[in-house]
Order: sequence, then C-alpha cells, then structure tokens
Amino acid sequence: MSAIAKTPEPPYVACIFSSLRTDDDHGYAQASARMEELAAQQPGYLGIEAARDGLGITVSYWTDDESARAWKAVAEHRRVQRRGHVEWYAAYRVRIATVTREYGKP
Amino acid sequence: MSAIAKTPEPPYVACIFSSLRTDDDHGYAQASARMEELAAQQPGYLGIEAARDGLGITVSYWTDDESARAWKAVAEHRRVQRRGHVEWYAAYRVRIATVTREYGKP
Repeated sequence: MSAIAKTPEPPYVACIFSSLRTDDDHGYAQASARMEELAAQQPGYLGIEAARDGLGITVSYWTDDESARAWKAVAEHRRVQRRGHVEWYAAYRVRIATVTREYGKP
Repeated sequence: MSAIAKTPEPPYVACIFSSLRTDDDHGYAQASARMEELAAQQPGYLGIEAARDGLGITVSYWTDDESARAWKAVAEHRRVQRRGHVEWYAAYRVRIATVTREYGKP
C-alpha cells in the first residue's frame, strides 16, 4: 500500500497520472513496480502516491519542472510509456502542476 | 467508479487530497457522496477524480484558486471537514496546485 508522501515546503511539482486500464495485465505489475523503483532514483524525486479502484491515480512529486521532464525522458521509462499507451491503458491523462500551498493532519 | 475528469486547457487548479482512513465508517460513505454532489454545484468546479486502495487520492479541479478556497469555506463542507479530521481520517494531506500543462490518451 502506498503512503502519504513526505514533501517539503511548496513550491514543488506534482505530476498527476489518471488512468483507466485495459484487460491486458501482461507485464503490467512488474513494470509498474520497476517504474516506482526507477523514479525514486532520479534527481529531484520527492515521493509518489498511488491508488486504484477502477480509476487509477498516481501522483509523483518533484523538486521542479525540469526534474519531472527529465524523468519522462529516461529511456527505460519511455519504453514503458509506449507499452502503457498501446497495451495497458484504455485512456489516461497526465497533468503537471505546481503545488503552491498545503496543509493536513500528520 | 470515478472517470477521468474532462478539464479545459491549463492553467486551472488541482486540489490533491491524499488520506489514510481510520476504522470508523459511521456516516463516511454518505458524507463522501454528498460532498461530491455539493462540490459539483460550486462556482468554478471543473471535475473530480477519486480512487482508494488503502491510501485514498481524490483530485478536484477548479477554474482558479479563489474557487478552490471558496469550496473549502462552504459551511456544510466545513462541518464535514471537521468530522473527517476527528473521526474518519488517521492522516491526510491537501495540496493545492496550478496545472501548467497536460497530455494523454483520450
């Protein structure tokens, strides 16, 4: 299970990935776990949160827009993005946003 | 099941609500459904996406920061926020962010 990410004081960048899956599970779980592991090794990575019940929402957090763009361009990630587009996702939306304020219950 | 929200060209505002529940379900499902209904009636509302499997992530979309702030201040919503803080959520984080770009597969 995913936890609430520990992020620093804003501003920082959130990459909101909302998706609907196909019925094709072939290789999906493995690729998904590998991408979370690989993301965590990238410069500027701050954390990730994920949940799915039908609709899936994954939010990754980055120090800045350059880090988020660089992660999108990582070769192994690009191969998985192409496979996701063709095989695993019926529809998806990626929104890149700048977090300006936040609050909560620790 | 939640669908992918149909949002306009950026910029607009995303309110990312990440939460971990308590074991107390009393009144939760009803309040949650009512808040989604009430949010959709507010000025500046663009859409909502929600998923939970342990961690819950709900993202509501708004035309601007003023609309997001006004929704937080709606009296019925404030009562539910207080109840959520005390009864339903072990921990949560609310992040308000400005969406600057987006792409996807329709």
